[in-house]
Amino acid sequence: MSKLEKAIVAIVEVFEEYAGTDEKKSQLSNAELGELIKAQLSSPEFKDKVDPENIKEVMEELDKNHDGEVNFREFSQCISGLAKAYYMKKHGKEKSRGRARGGQDK
Amino acid sequence: MSKLEKAIVAIVEVFEEYAGTDEKKSQLSNAELGELIKAQLSSPEFKDKVDPENIKEVMEELDKNHDGEVNFREFSQCISGLAKAYYMKKHGKEKSRGRARGGQDK
Repeated sequence: MSKLEKAIVAIVEVFEEYAGTDEKKSQLSNAELGELIKAQLSSPEFKDKVDPENIKEVMEELDKNHDGEVNFREFSQCISGLAKAYYMKKHGKEKSRGRARGGQDK
Repeated sequence: MSKLEKAIVAIVEVFEEYAGTDEKKSQLSNAELGELIKAQLSSPEFKDKVDPENIKEVMEELDKNHDGEVNFREFSQCISGLAKAYYMKKHGKEKSRGRARGGQDK
């Protein structure tokens, strides 16, 4: 598999690993999500490269249907948001506090 | 970095690699996108595990603002769609041709 395919498979595998700890295997409960974030989204190396406000924003978006559970669609959209936040910071395109400065994210 | 963080960074790096070949470094042109798909999303091992119809759907969604260019937000949403397609097939939740069968993607 290619680098990108391996990344896609890894996203699926991480979800399965943390969603699988209770009887609802296709959902992340709040507890499972907390475990996942603590173990998988907390390395200083990564967190330094993503704007904390973006992480907060993405997390708030996470449980869109507010059922207290996160299914894979919601989770993969969250990962997409985190990847965007990482890309934006890396390319110096972070939103200033509260207001998007400069042009589009072109 | 964790498995998930490495996957997120890999998605950013692959985009940068293919978007960087012309002067518009933050956009994938059609040609660059074609190269990316050919090299990064074509292994039989991966393609066997994703419903071709889902890939088609995700690709059609790709250039949402139809400017013939794909920015990182559009690209990361596409990856999220592919991850969902991979997950759905792996868990036997593919859409039957044209109609979603069975329950939600819970």
